[in-house]
Amino acid sequence: MRTSIATVCLSGTLEEKLQAAATAGFDGVEIFEQDLIVSPNSPEATAALAAELGLRLDLYQPFRDFEGVDEEQFAANMARAEAKFQLMKRLGMTTMLLCSNVATATVDDDDVVVDQLRRLGDLAEGYGIDVAYEALAWGRFVSEYDRAWDLVKAADHPRIGTCLDSFHILSRGTDLSRIAEIPGEKIFFLQLADAPSLSMDVLSWSRHHRVFPGEGSWDLTDFLARVAGTGYAGPVSLEVFNDSFRQADTQRTAVDGLRSLRWLEANVSAVGTDGAHVGLDLQPLPQVAEPRGIDYVELNTDDLGALTRLIHQLGFRFVGFHRTKPHVQLWQRGQARIVVTEPAGPCDEFTTVTNETTDPAEEAAALAADSTGSGTFLRGIGFAVDNADAAMERALLLSATEVPRDQAHDEEVLRGVFAPDGSEVFFGDGDGEDPQWTDEFGTVPDDRQSAIDHINLAQPAHHYDEAVLFYTSLLALTALPSQDVPSPSGLVRSQVMSSADGAVRMPLNVSPDHSPNALGRGVGSTAETYPEHVAIACDDIFTAAMTAVARGLKFLEVPQNYYEDLAARFDLAPELLDRLSEHNILYDRDDEGEFLHFYTSTIGSVFFEMVERRTGYRGFGAPNAPVRLAAQHRRNTES
Amino acid sequence: MRTSIATVCLSGTLEEKLQAAATAGFDGVEIFEQDLIVSPNSPEATAALAAELGLRLDLYQPFRDFEGVDEEQFAANMARAEAKFQLMKRLGMTTMLLCSNVATATVDDDDVVVDQLRRLGDLAEGYGIDVAYEALAWGRFVSEYDRAWDLVKAADHPRIGTCLDSFHILSRGTDLSRIAEIPGEKIFFLQLADAPSLSMDVLSWSRHHRVFPGEGSWDLTDFLARVAGTGYAGPVSLEVFNDSFRQADTQRTAVDGLRSLRWLEANVSAVGTDGAHVGLDLQPLPQVAEPRGIDYVELNTDDLGALTRLIHQLGFRFVGFHRTKPHVQLWQRGQARIVVTEPAGPCDEFTTVTNETTDPAEEAAALAADSTGSGTFLRGIGFAVDNADAAMERALLLSATEVPRDQAHDEEVLRGVFAPDGSEVFFGDGDGEDPQWTDEFGTVPDDRQSAIDHINLAQPAHHYDEAVLFYTSLLALTALPSQDVPSPSGLVRSQVMSSADGAVRMPLNVSPDHSPNALGRGVGSTAETYPEHVAIACDDIFTAAMTAVARGLKFLEVPQNYYEDLAARFDLAPELLDRLSEHNILYDRDDEGEFLHFYTSTIGSVFFEMVERRTGYRGFGAPNAPVRLAAQHRRNTES
Repeated sequence: MRTSIATVCLSGTLEEKLQAAATAGFDGVEIFEQDLIVSPNSPEATAALAAELGLRLDLYQPFRDFEGVDEEQFAANMARAEAKFQLMKRLGMTTMLLCSNVATATVDDDDVVVDQLRRLGDLAEGYGIDVAYEALAWGRFVSEYDRAWDLVKAADHPRIGTCLDSFHILSRGTDLSRIAEIPGEKIFFLQLADAPSLSMDVLSWSRHHRVFPGEGSWDLTDFLARVAGTGYAGPVSLEVFNDSFRQADTQRTAVDGLRSLRWLEANVSAVGTDGAHVGLDLQPLPQVAEPRGIDYVELNTDDLGALTRLIHQLGFRFVGFHRTKPHVQLWQRGQARIVVTEPAGPCDEFTTVTNETTDPAEEAAALAADSTGSGTFLRGIGFAVDNADAAMERALLLSATEVPRDQAHDEEVLRGVFAPDGSEVFFGDGDGEDPQWTDEFGTVPDDRQSAIDHINLAQPAHHYDEAVLFYTSLLALTALPSQDVPSPSGLVRSQVMSSADGAVRMPLNVSPDHSPNALGRGVGSTAETYPEHVAIACDDIFTAAMTAVARGLKFLEVPQNYYEDLAARFDLAPELLDRLSEHNILYDRDDEGEFLHFYTSTIGSVFFEMVERRTGYRGFGAPNAPVRLAAQHRRNTES
Repeated sequence: MRTSIATVCLSGTLEEKLQAAATAGFDGVEIFEQDLIVSPNSPEATAALAAELGLRLDLYQPFRDFEGVDEEQFAANMARAEAKFQLMKRLGMTTMLLCSNVATATVDDDDVVVDQLRRLGDLAEGYGIDVAYEALAWGRFVSEYDRAWDLVKAADHPRIGTCLDSFHILSRGTDLSRIAEIPGEKIFFLQLADAPSLSMDVLSWSRHHRVFPGEGSWDLTDFLARVAGTGYAGPVSLEVFNDSFRQADTQRTAVDGLRSLRWLEANVSAVGTDGAHVGLDLQPLPQVAEPRGIDYVELNTDDLGALTRLIHQLGFRFVGFHRTKPHVQLWQRGQARIVVTEPAGPCDEFTTVTNETTDPAEEAAALAADSTGSGTFLRGIGFAVDNADAAMERALLLSATEVPRDQAHDEEVLRGVFAPDGSEVFFGDGDGEDPQWTDEFGTVPDDRQSAIDHINLAQPAHHYDEAVLFYTSLLALTALPSQDVPSPSGLVRSQVMSSADGAVRMPLNVSPDHSPNALGRGVGSTAETYPEHVAIACDDIFTAAMTAVARGLKFLEVPQNYYEDLAARFDLAPELLDRLSEHNILYDRDDEGEFLHFYTSTIGSVFFEMVERRTGYRGFGAPNAPVRLAAQHRRNTES
C-alpha cells in the first residue's frame, strides 16, 4: 500500500515536514499550499528536496471556491486555477485537490457545475494534471461524497475524478454503500482521518480534533475495505488537522501517522475486501492476540531501602537477585512481580542498554535511556503474550524502537520496545503465571492470590493519541471511554487501555498542561509531576492492610469527610465504615460489585495501590480519584 | 451588592480557595461538596476558618437526582438529604442547591414532583434550611427555569424556592420575560456565568468553557437587571467551570472573578432596572469612555544601541532625555511615541518602582517589577483618556494593582496599574496628540503623519479571559471575534481589543502551550517565546521602507512563493508586485480597502511593523500572519 501524509498534519517548516515524512517511511506527501507559500525555497528546490528524500509529491491542496459561480467569477477562478497549474508543473505534481465551494457558490445547478468542472478538466489537460473533486462536509451546495461523485460522473472528463475523505464522509454519517458504485480509477485520491465522538459543529471538529486512524472512534477498517473494493490503486493518505500534532515533535508525529496506516492496512488485509483490492497491494502484519496478563513491572530506584521496604509492607516477598545482574532483584506477591533495578551502570540493569551500537535508531534509544537519569520511576512492563517473537516482529513493523538489551546466552531472551511515554514494553511467552525468566532469580513458593490489577501511567500531553494507537496496534488492547478527573491543580484526562478479560488494565493519564511534556522517564518526565502507580489485587484488603500496618506502612490519609459522604451515599454497616476509615480504605460500588482500595505514599514518581474487587466490579473507583489527588496535592504542597 | 463565588471556580485545596476568596474581597462562597469531601478539616473547622476570614457560607451544592422518582427511591433520597442537612448544620449553612434530576427521574408528573419538593421542604424546615431548586439545562424532565419556577410556585412551601443560573438559562436561549413573574423573595439564590458562543453539546460547554461575566458573549447586564427587577436581595454568585481557571493561580482567578461582578454591578447600576432593584444595593463605578488614543509605548532595553538604531531606521526622531531620569529617553514619529528605558536602577525608570513601601499590594508590585529582569521587552502602554483620575479610580475599584511611581513634584503625575500579562497600563488626560508630559523631554517638531497603529501583546495561556475582562472593564475596549493563526509550532489564538474608532487596537495572542505561563515581563515571560510588536501607521509605506533601507534596516524576509500566491489571488499590477517583493512588504485587501505592511527583525522580545492602511481597511493582514510566524520560526531555529 502506498502511504502518504499531508504536510498540514505535522509541525515545523516545509523542509522539516518533508524530512520527517521521509524518515518515518512514507512514500509520498500532500503539499498543503500554506506550507509552500511560507517557505523561502522555490518550488523547484522543494521538488528537488522531495526527490532526494525519495518522496513523491502526491497531491497539491487545497484549491477552493471554484464551481457553482457566475461566468465573471468563473473566469477569475480559471485564471487562479491556471496559476496553480503552472506552480504544480514547476513542482512536477500531477494531482490537485478541488474542495467543493464553501464561500462563493451562488448557483446550485448540476448542469452549471458539471460544465464548469469539464472546462477545468480541459484546462488541466494542457498541464497533464488530474483534478480530484471532494465534497467538504460544510460545502455550500455540495457536501456529500455521492453528490460529488454524481457530478464527476456527469462531467465525464478524463482529468476530473473524485477524492474521498473519511472525515467529510463519516462526520456526516452518510450511507457508505454508494462507494461501491465508484470505479476505482475515478477515485483520484483517498484521504483518511479518524476522530473522537464529539457533539460540536463539524467545522471546529474537523479543524482541531481529527486524529490518525485507530486514535478515534470510527471504523476506518471498514471504510478502507470499501474503497479497496473499488479497485482504487492510489496512495492512502493522512489528512489530519489536530491542535496537538501541530505543536508536537514533527518526527514522532510522522512515525505515529505511518503506524496508523500500517495497522489499518493489516486490518483490512486480515478482514479482506469485497472486490478488487489487489489495487492497494495490502501487506499483512504478524497478528497478535491481546496479552494474557502482566508478567512484571520494572521499577528503577535510587532509594532501594525505601522502595523495597514499601513493597515488603504490601506483602511482597524477596525472591532473589538476578544471577548475572547483581543490581537487579525480583519481589513477588502471588502472580504480582516487581523487578527492582538500581541504576548501577549500563550492564547491570534488567533491560540493559548497550552503548556500542552505531545504528541511529539504537543510538536514539540509548540516548533516551541515558536521559532518564536517576530517581524512583516505572521503567517498564513485561506482558505475557501468546507469541513473543510475533509480537516483537509486529512492533518493529509498526515503527516501534527496540530497547537494546544484553543477556547471557543461557538466559531468557526478553525483547521489547519503547512506548510513547518512554517506558519499556517487553514481550514474554506465556500466560503471566510463573514465567520462565523468574528462574534467573531463584524461586520462593508464594501461594497468595495476588496479581497486578492495573498500572496507571502518566502520558505527555501531546502524545496521548499516539499512546492509544501504540497500545491498540502493538498489544491489541482496547481503549475505554475517556473521563475527566478533577484535581486541585486541574482536570486530569484519564482513559483505560484494557484487554477484554481485564487481565491487563492500564489507565493512561494526562495531567493539566503545566506538567512537563518530556518523553522518557525520571527527572523532568511527565511522571515526575503526575506520579504513576502500580495496583496490586488481593483477595482480602483488610488482612493486607493489617499486615501493612504491622510492617509500618503509612497510608495515604483519607479525610473523615469522605466517610461521612460514603455513609450518605451508600447504605453501609457502621462497622464496615469504621473499618474502612481505620485503614484509610476507599470504597465504591456499582451494579456489578464492590471495590475496596488503599494507597501508599509516593517514592520518587511511583506509589502503590492495593485493591480488592468483589464479584464483578470492573471499574477503578473513579469517584474516589479526586480524594487521592487532593491528598497527594496536600502532601506535595506541605512538604 | 453581596458577592459570592463557588469554590469549584478556583484551583487548590478548600482552605486555599477560602483564603483566596476572602483576600479578593468576596462576601461569601458556595461550598462545592467535592471540595469539602476531600478536605481533612472537619465541617466545624471549615466553618471556623470561613468566620475568621469574614466569609459567609452562602450555598451548599450540589444536591442531585432527588425528585420525580418512585416512593422507594424517594425514601432513600430523603435519607440522603437528611444526612446533608445534618452536615450543613455543622457548617452553620442555611441554603442548599437542588439540581433538577438528571439520572434517576422516572416520573414526569408535576403533582408528584410538587409533592416531593414539599416533603423535602418539611424536612428542611426542621433544620432551618432553604432549598433552592434549579433547572439544569440537561435535566431529564425539568430543564427550563420557568418550569422549575412553576413547580416551586405550586409547591408553595416557605423552605422551597428557586435558583436562577445564567448558564442554564442563556445556553438554552429561553425567553427571559418570565423572570419578572418570580417574586424576588422566592429566588433563593442567583448564580452567574458567561460563556463564549460555541456550537457543542451543552454539558461539555458547561463543564469546560464557562467564564466570568464580561469574558464571554452573553448579555449578563440585561440578565442581572432582570433579576434585580424582581427585588432579589441575596448574594450574586459566580459558578464557573473552566479548565483554565482550575489550573491557574487561585488568588488571581479570585480577583478576576470579583472584578467581573463589580463591573457587572456598575453596568446594571448605570442602565437601571425595571423595578425594585433596591434589594441588590448596586454600587456604581466612575464611568470611563474608551481611550482616545495611545500616548506612548514604553520599551525596556539592555541593548540601547540596537533598539534606538532600529526605531531610527523606522523614522523615529530622538526628542530628548527625561529631565530628571537620565536613563529614560523619548523617540517620536508624528504622534507615535516610544519611551525607551534602560534598567539602570530603581529610581531611573520612567515608571519608577519604589521599594520603601510596606504595603502588601505595593510590595507585590515591586516584586513583579523586580522579577522582570533585563532584556528588551514591552514594559507598558500609556493611554490617552478623558479623565485620567476617574480611570485610575475605577481601575483600583476593579481590583487592579497600582504601579508604584516616583516623580519630582513639578512633573506630570502619570498613574497606572498592572495588566494581567505584567505590562503596565498608564492613564493620561488628553486625546493622544502632544500630551503634556512630553515637555519633560524637551520637544522637536515632527509633522509626519504617523501614530501607533496597534500593539500586539502576548498573553499567558491561562490568563487570557482575565485579560479580555481587564481591558473591557478598565478601558471600555471591545473584544472582536477570536481567530486561530497557524504557526510552525502550533495554532496561535488571537483576539483584538479595540476602541470603536480604531484609535486603540491591541491584538492579544496566546501562543501554543509549550510557552511559559509566566506573568510579568522579561526573562521567562510569555513574551520571550512569543514576541510582541508595535505597529506604526504611516501614509506612504514605500517611502518609509526606502528610508529604512537607507538607514540599514534588514526586513524580516518574505518568501518569493508568497508573492506568486498574491499574484494568483489578487489582480495586482506587476510593477506593484515587484515593489512589494523588493521591500518585503506584505499585502492584503478586503471590501473596505488595502493594507500594506512590513516587519523588522526581533530584539529581545520586541519587533516592529510599519503599516499603511488605504481607504477603510480595518483588519491586521491576518492572511499574512502565518508568513511572518514561519519567517520568525526559521530565524529562531537557524540562530
